[in-house]
Amino acid sequence: MKTVLALACLASAATAHAQTHDVAALRDAALQDQYALEITEGLTTEIGPRLAGTEAEARARTWAVAKLTALGFSNVRVESFDMPVWVRGDEKAWVTAPFPQPLAVTALGNSGATPASGIQGEIVAFESVDALIAAPDSAVRGKIVFIDHAMPPTQDGSSYGAFGRPRREGPTIASRKGAVGIVVRSIGTDSHRNPHTGVQTFADGAKPIPAGALSNPDADQLKRILKRGRPVKLKLVLTPRNIGIRQSGNVIAEVPGRDRSLPPVLVGGHLDSWDLGTGAVDDASGVAITAAAAKRIMDAGQPLRTIRVVWFGAEEVGLFGGLDYRAKHGKEPHYAIAESDFGADKVWQVNTKLGMAREGEAKALQQALAPLGIVPGSLTEADGSDIGPMIADGVPAIALSQDGTHYFDLHHTPDDTFDKIDPAAMRQNVAAWTAMLAIVANTPAK
Amino acid sequence: MKTVLALACLASAATAHAQTHDVAALRDAALQDQYALEITEGLTTEIGPRLAGTEAEARARTWAVAKLTALGFSNVRVESFDMPVWVRGDEKAWVTAPFPQPLAVTALGNSGATPASGIQGEIVAFESVDALIAAPDSAVRGKIVFIDHAMPPTQDGSSYGAFGRPRREGPTIASRKGAVGIVVRSIGTDSHRNPHTGVQTFADGAKPIPAGALSNPDADQLKRILKRGRPVKLKLVLTPRNIGIRQSGNVIAEVPGRDRSLPPVLVGGHLDSWDLGTGAVDDASGVAITAAAAKRIMDAGQPLRTIRVVWFGAEEVGLFGGLDYRAKHGKEPHYAIAESDFGADKVWQVNTKLGMAREGEAKALQQALAPLGIVPGSLTEADGSDIGPMIADGVPAIALSQDGTHYFDLHHTPDDTFDKIDPAAMRQNVAAWTAMLAIVANTPAK
Repeated sequence: MKTVLALACLASAATAHAQTHDVAALRDAALQDQYALEITEGLTTEIGPRLAGTEAEARARTWAVAKLTALGFSNVRVESFDMPVWVRGDEKAWVTAPFPQPLAVTALGNSGATPASGIQGEIVAFESVDALIAAPDSAVRGKIVFIDHAMPPTQDGSSYGAFGRPRREGPTIASRKGAVGIVVRSIGTDSHRNPHTGVQTFADGAKPIPAGALSNPDADQLKRILKRGRPVKLKLVLTPRNIGIRQSGNVIAEVPGRDRSLPPVLVGGHLDSWDLGTGAVDDASGVAITAAAAKRIMDAGQPLRTIRVVWFGAEEVGLFGGLDYRAKHGKEPHYAIAESDFGADKVWQVNTKLGMAREGEAKALQQALAPLGIVPGSLTEADGSDIGPMIADGVPAIALSQDGTHYFDLHHTPDDTFDKIDPAAMRQNVAAWTAMLAIVANTPAK
Repeated sequence: MKTVLALACLASAATAHAQTHDVAALRDAALQDQYALEITEGLTTEIGPRLAGTEAEARARTWAVAKLTALGFSNVRVESFDMPVWVRGDEKAWVTAPFPQPLAVTALGNSGATPASGIQGEIVAFESVDALIAAPDSAVRGKIVFIDHAMPPTQDGSSYGAFGRPRREGPTIASRKGAVGIVVRSIGTDSHRNPHTGVQTFADGAKPIPAGALSNPDADQLKRILKRGRPVKLKLVLTPRNIGIRQSGNVIAEVPGRDRSLPPVLVGGHLDSWDLGTGAVDDASGVAITAAAAKRIMDAGQPLRTIRVVWFGAEEVGLFGGLDYRAKHGKEPHYAIAESDFGADKVWQVNTKLGMAREGEAKALQQALAPLGIVPGSLTEADGSDIGPMIADGVPAIALSQDGTHYFDLHHTPDDTFDKIDPAAMRQNVAAWTAMLAIVANTPAK
C-alpha cells in the first residue's frame, strides 16, 4: 500500500512538473535567451562601475529594483546595511633609478595612502610571499617591497587561491617588517597594462601602508630592470581614502511558489563591482544569468517552491552583502542556494552539496545538464562567494561552475566591460540555470 | 669580346659575393639571431618611453650611440635638429549625464588643453569625418564632437589610411565648426581600455581645441549611452603643454663598404616612441631588426657598399628626423633606402622601387626571400615612414612589408611593450633584412 501511494505521489509530482515545467524544453528555449544580455548591457551601460557603499552602487540598487519589478518579479525590495567605505585616489608609479620611466599601478583595496607628492624608496624584490616571510626585517625596513609570482590560468580558477597570496597577505607582512610600501604583480593572467585591483585587509596591528598592483607587463619590466643588478628606486603615488560608514544593500526579488510553506531556492550574484571597469563579467553577468533563468521559469508557470533572486551588495570588498543576508535569513530554511560569480563563459561542471538523501535530485540535475556539455562534478562540495558562509553553515548548495580559463584576464581590471561577453556562452549559462531551477524549484521533498 | 668580358666580370662579381656573403647561408643563420631581441629588450627596458624632443629621447640617443659602438659599427654619430615639443598632461573623461561614469581617454598629439578643472559639453556624435563635414556648424558649436568609425584589421595595414581620418582631420574640422572639444574612437583594432594616441596637426587658422581618443570599449560604451536617445554630457580634462623648441636627432652608424665611391644602402627605423608604452613594436623592433641585419653582414665580411644604419628621431610627431636627414643628405646618391616601422610580425611581402634597369636585382631579392614565406609584391612601389619623402623624391627603395593584422592592437597604446614581441617572428625579419643587405650591398652596378 505504501509503495502504491509513493508511486502515485511520484507520478502526480511528475505530472505537476510536466504541466508547468518541461525541463528539457525550458533548457533548450533558454539557448535563445535575451534577458541576461539585456540586464548585463543595461546595468553596465546605465550604471557602469558601482563600488560598494558609493553613490554609484546606490544608483545600481535603484536600477535593480526598477528592472526586477519591470520583469514581473514579486516582493522586490532592498535590505540595507552599513559598511566602511574605501575609495581610490590618484595612482601613479615611476622607476626613478637607474632607468627613469612610468609604471602602470593601481591601489589594492584598503591600501594606505602616500602623501600627494608620493613616497620614494628602494625596491626589494621577492619571488613569493614565503620568500618575503623568510627575509630578515632588516632587508625590508624602509623599502618598497615587490612580490612577483607566476599565476597560470586554470579552468576551475583554483590558481587564484594559491597565487592570490601576494595580494591578500603581502601588504600585512610587508608592513610588519617595516616596509614603506608594497607593489605586487597583478593577480591576473593577461598581458595588458591594466593592473588588477582586489581587496586585502591589514591584519590587526599592522599599520596600513600604500599597497598597489602592477600590471603584468609592468611587473615584467620591473623584473628586467632589477635583473641589471643595480639598486632600483620607485616613486609611488597612491592617495585612496577611507570615507567612513556608508550604506549598501542587497536587492531581493521573488517568484512566489505554489506552496509557500516550502523552503525557497535562492539564486543570485553580486550587484557591486570594482571601480576600474564596468563589472560586466564580475558580476553583472552573474546577476543577469540567474535573474534571466528565474524569469524564464516564472513565465513558464508558477513553480512549486518560491525562487528568491538575491543581488548581493558589497561583495568585492568583503562579502558584506552575503554576511548581511546570512545574519537576517541564515536561520530560515533554504531548499538550495546557488550563486553565479565567475564570469560569463560556459558552465562546464555541476557540483552539488545537497546531502545523501537528495542524491537522486543531484543525479537528475546532472542528466538535465549533460546536453549542454556540462560534466558531473562533486556530490559533496559546492561553492559560491556571498553564499560561502551559508554553505559552510550547512545550507544545501549547488554550483554551476564556469570555465575560468580566461576569467583572470579581465578580473578586477578596467577591461571588465560589456564587449567581453560572448552571447552564446552567456545563453548556455542561462540554459543551465533554467534547467536547474526547473528541477529544484519543483521538487516536493522537504 | 664584349660579351666574354661581361661574362667574366659577372663571374668575378659572383665569386666576390660568394667569398664574402653567401646569401642563403646568412639568411638562414639569421633565423637564430639574438641581436635584434637584445637591442629591443635593452632599449625598451633601459630607456622605456622616449617621446620626441624630451630628455627621454636624448637618453635614448646616448644609449643608441653606446650600443651601436659596442656592436662594432663605424662612424657612429648624432645629427641633431630642433623641433617644437608637445607633452602630455592629465587626461580624464567622464560621462556626467545621463549615466555618470568615467571613460578612458588619451590626448592626441598637439591637442589643445582644457583648464585643470576641465570642460563640460554635450556630445554630438558622427559616424565618420564626412558626416561631421556635412553637419551644419550650428549642430556642432559649443559641443564636444565624438567621431566613431569601424576600422577593421588588415594584413597590409591599409585600413590605417582611410580610418585614420577622424584622428588626423577631425580636430581641425571640429574646431572650425566651433566645437569646444573632440573625442574620437581610437584608431585601433583591439578591445582593451588603452586608448591609442597619435599625431594630428591643427591646420592653419584652426584654433587648437582639446582632442582626445577614447579606447574602443569606451567608444562602444558611449555609443550605447547615446543610443538611449537622451542628451549626453561629457566632462573632459586634458592638460597637455607645448614646451617650446627642443633638440632631437638622428643616430647614424655605418658598416663601411670596400668601395667608398659607391652610393650606400640605407636601412633603419625610428628611435623615438609615443609616451604611453615603451615603443617595442613601434619602433624599437624596427631599429633592432635593421641594425641586427647590418651587424650580421659586417661580421660576415666587408660588403662592397657602405651600409648606413639610421635610427631616426622624432618620427611619431611629424617625421622630423626623416626630413632632417633628407635636408642634410637627400642630394647625396643612395643606392637603396629601406625602413622597418610596422612592428615585429613576420615579413610577408617584398616590394621594390628600384627602377626598370634593376629589375634583375629585384627578382634576385624576391628569390632569396621566398624560402622565408615572403611573396613578391610590386616592382614599382615601396614605402616607409621617415624615408617616405625621399622615396617621393625618387630615391630607390625597398619595403619588406610586415604582417599588420595585429599591429593596430598595440600601436600608440600603453600596451606597446616588450612582452608583445614574438622572438621567432622577429628573427624571420632579421633573416629577410640580412638576405636583402647581402644582395643589395654587394651589387656592383651604380
